[in-house]
Amino acid sequence: MINVGIIGATGYAGNELVRLLLQHKEVSIKWYGSKSYIDKKYASIYKNMFQLVEDVCLDDNMDQLAKEVDVIFTATPQGLCSSLIDEEILKKVKVIDLSADFRIKDVNIYEQWYQMKHNNPSFIEKAVYGLCEINRPLIKDANLIANPGCYPTCSTLSIYPLLKEGIIDGNSIIIDAKSGTSGAGRSAKVDNLYCEVNENIKAYGVATHRHTPEIEEQLSFGAGEKVVINFTPHLVPMNRGILVTAYGNLKKEVTYEEVKSIYDNYYEKEQFIRVLEKDIVPETRWVEGSNYVDINFKIDTRTKRIIIMGAMDNLVKGAAGQAIQNMNIMFGLKEDTGLLQVPMFP
Amino acid sequence: MINVGIIGATGYAGNELVRLLLQHKEVSIKWYGSKSYIDKKYASIYKNMFQLVEDVCLDDNMDQLAKEVDVIFTATPQGLCSSLIDEEILKKVKVIDLSADFRIKDVNIYEQWYQMKHNNPSFIEKAVYGLCEINRPLIKDANLIANPGCYPTCSTLSIYPLLKEGIIDGNSIIIDAKSGTSGAGRSAKVDNLYCEVNENIKAYGVATHRHTPEIEEQLSFGAGEKVVINFTPHLVPMNRGILVTAYGNLKKEVTYEEVKSIYDNYYEKEQFIRVLEKDIVPETRWVEGSNYVDINFKIDTRTKRIIIMGAMDNLVKGAAGQAIQNMNIMFGLKEDTGLLQVPMFP
Amino acid sequence: MINVGIIGATGYAGNELVRLLLQHKEVSIKWYGSKSYIDKKYASIYKNMFQLVEDVCLDDNMDQLAKEVDVIFTATPQGLCSSLIDEEILKKVKVIDLSADFRIKDVNIYEQWYQMKHNNPSFIEKAVYGLCEINRPLIKDANLIANPGCYPTCSTLSIYPLLKEGIIDGNSIIIDAKSGTSGAGRSAKVDNLYCEVNENIKAYGVATHRHTPEIEEQLSFGAGEKVVINFTPHLVPMNRGILVTAYGNLKKEVTYEEVKSIYDNYYEKEQFIRVLEKDIVPETRWVEGSNYVDINFKIDTRTKRIIIMGAMDNLVKGAAGQAIQNMNIMFGLKEDTGLLQVPMFP
Amino acid sequence: MINVGIIGATGYAGNELVRLLLQHKEVSIKWYGSKSYIDKKYASIYKNMFQLVEDVCLDDNMDQLAKEVDVIFTATPQGLCSSLIDEEILKKVKVIDLSADFRIKDVNIYEQWYQMKHNNPSFIEKAVYGLCEINRPLIKDANLIANPGCYPTCSTLSIYPLLKEGIIDGNSIIIDAKSGTSGAGRSAKVDNLYCEVNENIKAYGVATHRHTPEIEEQLSFGAGEKVVINFTPHLVPMNRGILVTAYGNLKKEVTYEEVKSIYDNYYEKEQFIRVLEKDIVPETRWVEGSNYVDINFKIDTRTKRIIIMGAMDNLVKGAAGQAIQNMNIMFGLKEDTGLLQVPMFP
Repeated sequence: MINVGIIGATGYAGNELVRLLLQHKEVSIKWYGSKSYIDKKYASIYKNMFQLVEDVCLDDNMDQLAKEVDVIFTATPQGLCSSLIDEEILKKVKVIDLSADFRIKDVNIYEQWYQMKHNNPSFIEKAVYGLCEINRPLIKDANLIANPGCYPTCSTLSIYPLLKEGIIDGNSIIIDAKSGTSGAGRSAKVDNLYCEVNENIKAYGVATHRHTPEIEEQLSFGAGEKVVINFTPHLVPMNRGILVTAYGNLKKEVTYEEVKSIYDNYYEKEQFIRVLEKDIVPETRWVEGSNYVDINFKIDTRTKRIIIMGAMDNLVKGAAGQAIQNMNIMFGLKEDTGLLQVPMFP
Repeated sequence: MINVGIIGATGYAGNELVRLLLQHKEVSIKWYGSKSYIDKKYASIYKNMFQLVEDVCLDDNMDQLAKEVDVIFTATPQGLCSSLIDEEILKKVKVIDLSADFRIKDVNIYEQWYQMKHNNPSFIEKAVYGLCEINRPLIKDANLIANPGCYPTCSTLSIYPLLKEGIIDGNSIIIDAKSGTSGAGRSAKVDNLYCEVNENIKAYGVATHRHTPEIEEQLSFGAGEKVVINFTPHLVPMNRGILVTAYGNLKKEVTYEEVKSIYDNYYEKEQFIRVLEKDIVPETRWVEGSNYVDINFKIDTRTKRIIIMGAMDNLVKGAAGQAIQNMNIMFGLKEDTGLLQVPMFP
Repeated sequence: MINVGIIGATGYAGNELVRLLLQHKEVSIKWYGSKSYIDKKYASIYKNMFQLVEDVCLDDNMDQLAKEVDVIFTATPQGLCSSLIDEEILKKVKVIDLSADFRIKDVNIYEQWYQMKHNNPSFIEKAVYGLCEINRPLIKDANLIANPGCYPTCSTLSIYPLLKEGIIDGNSIIIDAKSGTSGAGRSAKVDNLYCEVNENIKAYGVATHRHTPEIEEQLSFGAGEKVVINFTPHLVPMNRGILVTAYGNLKKEVTYEEVKSIYDNYYEKEQFIRVLEKDIVPETRWVEGSNYVDINFKIDTRTKRIIIMGAMDNLVKGAAGQAIQNMNIMFGLKEDTGLLQVPMFP
Repeated sequence: MINVGIIGATGYAGNELVRLLLQHKEVSIKWYGSKSYIDKKYASIYKNMFQLVEDVCLDDNMDQLAKEVDVIFTATPQGLCSSLIDEEILKKVKVIDLSADFRIKDVNIYEQWYQMKHNNPSFIEKAVYGLCEINRPLIKDANLIANPGCYPTCSTLSIYPLLKEGIIDGNSIIIDAKSGTSGAGRSAKVDNLYCEVNENIKAYGVATHRHTPEIEEQLSFGAGEKVVINFTPHLVPMNRGILVTAYGNLKKEVTYEEVKSIYDNYYEKEQFIRVLEKDIVPETRWVEGSNYVDINFKIDTRTKRIIIMGAMDNLVKGAAGQAIQNMNIMFGLKEDTGLLQVPMFP
């Protein structure tokens, strides 16, 4: 039995960790960390957990946590995880950080896009970027995981096989992404009120969104050269789900079958990636509540571009699910343990 | 391993059966029945099932089904199940009928409210009304289950302890219910289009809804005398969830503690019924995707009435989940097998 | 031209006042009051007003306002309007208060339900309850209007004809109401976030909602005797709209035609009240954006009750629209001036 | 008074024409055409019109219509309008066609993308493409208007000034568009059911959507050379609204101020186009129910691209509103007559 602690258990990603971990047979949650709700019953904040979780919320005490648990998930704002860890901690406990603190290898780029000083740059190198399907071997031996952002997970998984195989021009890539509102978090802001989000669609963070350099770094690894992209996220009036629509210039003429076979080569054995059948578009409704990423593409011979689409649940594969997938890999469990939820529709 | 056949697998309740049964360790689905989609891949109709279900849809062949499976779920329009079964069939296979064919014991009342002749009234008596928490002993030995309607499940479970204990006057009961739109089914009607349902709330079936006599019959059993009620359902712009708000005249002065202890007596050991803490209202979001019913009440001393509230997922405890719970009881499995989904929020 | 000042212009009701008054030919808005946004451009807060409103938000300066405008709308929290007015102010300017300060004639009941001391009880008697269709003659001569609450408007207009005509028993009345989320206001609370409201329905203020005594007082006036009711509001995942479903015991046998003729007698000449045709249920979608109230009823001979339904837009007839209708009456304008918006669907 | 006939009055665009024309002082609707609902009261189909429209629906009788009215709006499926008109008709009556029959000047391109033979190609040349802000002088003298598609209106108005001024490379343009569900029409299809659209986002018509050649033709006129683009529409769970996010390669270095001044030159005097202030993104909520198009842009110096965004109400400026704007121009009325609805929020 793996003992787990969660720091930031009362955000949406934190609650999703709890939902999934309660259904994970090899795990016991020992610590529901939440600075905002110390001493309050967890189930009084997330009432879906009534009679399922009896614990109260606890403060962030890293030293004690490191003694009591085997792995800590930090689902916290930027800067917190990096301020809490050190060599001593990481000797005792594995850490899976759902924030962006250790995702970007180039600390200057991190500081520039996040507009904050990095607390603990020496650990960036040690952290493994936990995109399971790509970095599985490294994840296995890691004790600090930078769990990927939601948009970067969906974007990278959708695009990088074509980039790596030289099908598209990296610098032509435009990613137009759409996310459900749980991605905006649970903080009380006017912009996230029901009446402000409902019956509306808007872009945000245009040309400045912090997931841009994370995607660029991963795509650059895939391409073997520096890739600069456009990334525009949009807020959609729905709870969950991310859809990525990406555009890239084809470097040569390709057929549907050629591209399909590339995706199949990369993903046929990947349980959580479903390359759809011809002309079936990915839709967020078909992955809701599950760890799947649905991917497909369309070649436009008129414009010599390819349109790549990827859909997933931002709280599962885009956050808590992938974090648990990382944990499973790190602890030598079957990778799908606790992650076999069938997508729920409608 | 229990072999299962589903007739009506391409409705919303049918798809929910598939979702839940795929996560049920003791079950193998052998037959995806759907007259409308014969020979089409099930996963082409419900794309959440891509790579999870490889089967194609089959016609309704009761004889063959009875040979191949141990239990049949019929998630079909009124009148179909009753037209398909006979003594021979029921000797070979258990049937759990999600339609209303065998729910109402008084065939005249059935025919009057459903405005159709009953095909097979001789089986009504043999069918057990599958409200698990109330009829568990009978369900155990049944081979034909009338799986309760969504509104009757939520209404009866919420109200009947107070009726049975003589707290409220049965004939004073008014049930004002609200349902998500999956309850309206997947047929292509203008009234169920997105733009017609979204940003709207309305009552329907006012004083004529077919679930009225079903609720009345169950409440009458509880009360030990004939109960006549008002039942008004409303259509809410959301996918899932039923909320029942019921009003009853108190027959005597009671305290919060007295009423609470009645509920606790009935439901403390019931895994899927959660009687909430004082002043916490049931909300559909806290049970979504799960088999729970959340119940609470408020005594209004000014009006000498009690307001009883119940929330559940109409597709789970209100349809597929309860059907599986019935199956578990009938086959001697642990009652919660395959039904341990934690409510998904948001 | 009537010069208008708005205090509380940046709430949802305030913005709706602006929307409607901009389309009112006899009005010029001179003062956009908003303590939270002083000196900010109004159109930067409500961007629908870009290029339509150039003004900045101003503080609440009642003395200056009274000099500059002919009528003040206060769309503010309880207690503010009553703290601002006095004899001098009301000599200079008419006040239409959208808060509850002057709605309830019995100050003890106000203080008990609102759990606050009334600032200015001497003005309660002078204030006219601005339910236009009922109090039109008094409104004409008033200089202080207590604009009715949203639920009380819809409830009272739907029910009181039957009460006044002795058709139903006042003390049997149960009002189960449903409201869109704009009714919860624009303050930044977790409970009103998109992900908390979406895909959910719940009751709130069960047996304690402050609109209860307001409805009771109005219905008591209609009945000519004290009426005590149950009132339960519910929060619906939609922006606008209120639906009231009310239940009352019939005091005698009545036919559809008799009840219909009562409603017709009361409302045939009322432009903003539409008594629907037989068996057509009121739905919020058909009144959205307009000042209409749609009303209908169903007699249930089985239970000897009548079900009365009313639908309206909570921000129009339930707030800003009725406030303007009151203004039109007070200033001798045609009552529908600026209020001829056709309901917008979908 | 202009007498108006509507063919296709019971679609969503038809109902929006009715909503707006009822608020137009110079217009009287004489003919509510709807093949599907002949002899049914219009207000029984669109109950928002109860007591506002007493007419019943009529068949499509072009000859009689041409005698009785001054202008006909056809809000009908492709191919109908072109099959109904001839020289005789157009001598007697003006026609504003909301379908695509006469939008595309090159009949081959029409037939290729719409996969149907054009009924009446000789009228294509005579028809004026009714994009008011661009073709105003031609519209004035037209008697046959091809009212632009929703996506083409929003796309063209947002992009063409930059194309015409040589700022962006036409063939680099990628348009990623998002639409509310009213754009899918009111026909009863499973794909448009509430539960299928709600909590979902998907692309559709990828690389094949029929609005692509319409946008290309208009942009080519602007650019003065053939432009080939990518256009990908997405279905968003909301009733109304279109958001266009377009990407183009900058042909030279430009500053914010330079681009802003181009937009201002084109649109400063255009009442219905609002070029937003710096860094304010267009959002559909701010234009709902109105004839406005909100436009803004962001220069991305990293990628040497510009991101252009446009938001409007697909049923107003994208259909009925623009049709009425065209009518106003054709009949010499003030262009904003009947179109002064303030955007409704929330």
